[in-house]
Amino acid sequence: MATDQARSESEGTDTFDEFESRVQRISNVGNAAGILRWDQEVVMPDEGTPARAQQLSTLSSISHELLTADETGQLLEELESADLSEERAAVVREIRRQYDRKTSVPQELVEEISETTANAHPKWKQAKEEDDFETFAPVLEKLVELKREYAEHVDPDADPYEVLFAEYEPYIDLETAERVLENLRDELVPLIEAIDESDADLTTDAFAGEFDDDDQEALARDVLDSLGYDWDRGRLDTAPHPFSSGTQFDARVTTRFEEDDLLGSITSTIHEFGHANYTLGLPDEGYGTPLGEARDLSVHESQSRLWENHVGRSRPFWEHFLPIARERFPELEDVTPEEAYEAANQVYDDNLIRVEADELTYHLHIVIRFEIERDLISGDLEVEDVPEAWNDKYEEYLGVRPETDAEGCLQDIHWSHGSFGYFPTYSLGSVLAAQLYAAAEDELGDLDDDVREADFDALNGWLRENIHQHGKQYETQELIRQATGEELTADHFLEYVEGKYGDLYALEGY
Amino acid sequence: MATDQARSESEGTDTFDEFESRVQRISNVGNAAGILRWDQEVVMPDEGTPARAQQLSTLSSISHELLTADETGQLLEELESADLSEERAAVVREIRRQYDRKTSVPQELVEEISETTANAHPKWKQAKEEDDFETFAPVLEKLVELKREYAEHVDPDADPYEVLFAEYEPYIDLETAERVLENLRDELVPLIEAIDESDADLTTDAFAGEFDDDDQEALARDVLDSLGYDWDRGRLDTAPHPFSSGTQFDARVTTRFEEDDLLGSITSTIHEFGHANYTLGLPDEGYGTPLGEARDLSVHESQSRLWENHVGRSRPFWEHFLPIARERFPELEDVTPEEAYEAANQVYDDNLIRVEADELTYHLHIVIRFEIERDLISGDLEVEDVPEAWNDKYEEYLGVRPETDAEGCLQDIHWSHGSFGYFPTYSLGSVLAAQLYAAAEDELGDLDDDVREADFDALNGWLRENIHQHGKQYETQELIRQATGEELTADHFLEYVEGKYGDLYALEGY
Repeated sequence: MATDQARSESEGTDTFDEFESRVQRISNVGNAAGILRWDQEVVMPDEGTPARAQQLSTLSSISHELLTADETGQLLEELESADLSEERAAVVREIRRQYDRKTSVPQELVEEISETTANAHPKWKQAKEEDDFETFAPVLEKLVELKREYAEHVDPDADPYEVLFAEYEPYIDLETAERVLENLRDELVPLIEAIDESDADLTTDAFAGEFDDDDQEALARDVLDSLGYDWDRGRLDTAPHPFSSGTQFDARVTTRFEEDDLLGSITSTIHEFGHANYTLGLPDEGYGTPLGEARDLSVHESQSRLWENHVGRSRPFWEHFLPIARERFPELEDVTPEEAYEAANQVYDDNLIRVEADELTYHLHIVIRFEIERDLISGDLEVEDVPEAWNDKYEEYLGVRPETDAEGCLQDIHWSHGSFGYFPTYSLGSVLAAQLYAAAEDELGDLDDDVREADFDALNGWLRENIHQHGKQYETQELIRQATGEELTADHFLEYVEGKYGDLYALEGY
Repeated sequence: MATDQARSESEGTDTFDEFESRVQRISNVGNAAGILRWDQEVVMPDEGTPARAQQLSTLSSISHELLTADETGQLLEELESADLSEERAAVVREIRRQYDRKTSVPQELVEEISETTANAHPKWKQAKEEDDFETFAPVLEKLVELKREYAEHVDPDADPYEVLFAEYEPYIDLETAERVLENLRDELVPLIEAIDESDADLTTDAFAGEFDDDDQEALARDVLDSLGYDWDRGRLDTAPHPFSSGTQFDARVTTRFEEDDLLGSITSTIHEFGHANYTLGLPDEGYGTPLGEARDLSVHESQSRLWENHVGRSRPFWEHFLPIARERFPELEDVTPEEAYEAANQVYDDNLIRVEADELTYHLHIVIRFEIERDLISGDLEVEDVPEAWNDKYEEYLGVRPETDAEGCLQDIHWSHGSFGYFPTYSLGSVLAAQLYAAAEDELGDLDDDVREADFDALNGWLRENIHQHGKQYETQELIRQATGEELTADHFLEYVEGKYGDLYALEGY
């Protein structure tokens, strides 16, 4: 019996090694593609596109073939009946999930979706430019159909939207997500109304003016220095749509500079730092397997939002950072930390555009998209009725009605990519950020002094220990439970914003 | 019969399409690896190495597996008996050659060579730093043995050095290469002696001084503008060891700036432009197959040397470029084009270092390496005797004897990579550059006026038509024959340098 056990373990080990090599190979191909995409966004010359498209397509199909090969399926089966450590079992779980998804959908459908989205993107762009929803509607309808079909293949018994949501957030139940989003909607609508009616006189022009690009870049580097970015494993560049990408050995940040938006460049840099800092906290030894890869979109977004909002939009941060900003921009001489704090936390209650929203109204933009895409996929809403539904919801939740579809339902790129189920992860990320920050302060005590001194060792140590180092070892809801002792909840976020904005806008009852 | 013929062609076509997809896939993986290597040299943060090494190793093994797969062999066999166009037959010929090489060598030997070179590089570095040949000798000996074994697998009937040379230059006979190198040696040794004995008083300090890096970079961009570099398909960056890489859609140049070496930065930039310009001239429609890839090392080097030497070190170039350089560096105000020309063509007859050599003595550095590595591989020279053989040859050919091995046989990295047979391609490239430039002038007339006006349309048009557009369609010696009407010959190079340096150094009999 002991011998049999030893033998089964040893066989499991050999099989696992073979499996791990395959997984690492897939991961390396994916990381190579990541470098190619970074290159394309940041440094590639304009006319490099045709060759780059072919290179990326080749890497993507190699990766797909490696993942969906019969050998992968056989290894998974063998390992699922072997006696594995918790870590190894987690690797098997993650690859099993990807394998099942990829092998359940016929290749022709994958290709049809890929072609349709390639075609949808220019249509969406044109529709937005010309403010003509009719240009986009037919291809959106086609995408909705194809995505429903896709979901049917993955799991014929499940709610199709749930299947699509799980594409981005595999380990948070849709029910949990819905509960959080409804909670946000129900609490934020009255809070924003109260702010709208408030007479408070916030200083909003602290960063008005024109700011040189090169100086903004130097200041972005100052920001990253303050936050403790590891330049030996990262770099800062500019990109039209800022993003972070890479691995624990090389996690890069991009940002952008607009002459009249110094604050935007600072907060965007902090946001992308949060993403990169998560990546840098993944364990080196897990490189190439899910143990060295970030948990999914919501956890990633929790890291960017935690740094952007809980650190970067706090009073103590501006007490620390304003003197540094003044070195680069002497015109900020007369701005006080309190004024900077107020400018960084202004609520734009009549804004129609998601990407220009503040941290409060932002979630109503998300709730609106979530409700619409969920109803689109279920068939409760027809594509042709999207513009009116969109505008009605803006009026109901935010008290403003878009006058055009360009600044209404055509504003975001996501649906043209067929990305239904993606939007909720933005809000879940913010909610989780607040929950994590509260848990960190529970354990470490109030962090304001640390932020004021730009001493992030304790906070980052807590994040490394409770989130980063685990990679994908735990399912998301389990990871949250272990880190905070609670299920995912909007409570901490609501407490945070009610306290902060109640104070800023001198709201009664908050 | 007509039907059979049609059928055989159509089957050939289907098979060719399948074959071409496979070839394109291999090419795309290789080009992706090229981007990863560019990234590593130019922008990657220091600590990115471990992950990058794994990514590159994965891409390399995927590429190897695709090339050496049984399917590749079957497709090759089918296509070799099909009725193919000249272009398609060339694609088959090129892949056949790679396939045969790769499949003839056992994977264990490939891995042993790979491990040994990985180990050899630090040993070489240490040996060079400590000027201690004994540190490098054992691993060099091992590499010589392994490379002999490698050659034996590829072709047991051939001279092993010939097999290794063909790794870098598959379509130039070693006999031709030897003839050219001997010719160079026999003619250059007396020419350099004559220069050594000349009383000519060249101006060599035209570019003495200290030059700011940023201004040097601006000037490097001016150089590339003058030469007509296509910025929509390229970029300029810095790298410790300048190189060019990429494809016809995206061919990038790197250079380096040293405060006290403005001239070196200019000539290095022109050299790398020549490489990139060749890549940019490859046909777009051939991307992904040998028809869209550069012929081998000697032809590539002919392009860099043609621009560097025949254009960039010419009188008319400096008549054009000196005024531009003065805009960036007013301290060059009093330098005349003739003085710049003299400085750019100074012969360093007591220089021991290949990479610091002028365009004349350079080839004796190469001949010495060629003679030594050929004798090492044949067994006519033992590793322990390399330092003395090296020093003797320097004394014999160049009239200088290295006092240390660090500035002698340890100076170059190549042998630590196991690259025996690489060195000759440098000289073959220069020789071919002169042959091509002469053929271009034969057809287009004297090009001095064009160079003086920085009008390179005719010259580049000639290169595009006679070299670039053909990719790998023709074997190298055939390509040279078609472009110049002659076999590869050192005659034009010797005529060029004898005329140029005879004039510069007022040599009798030249």
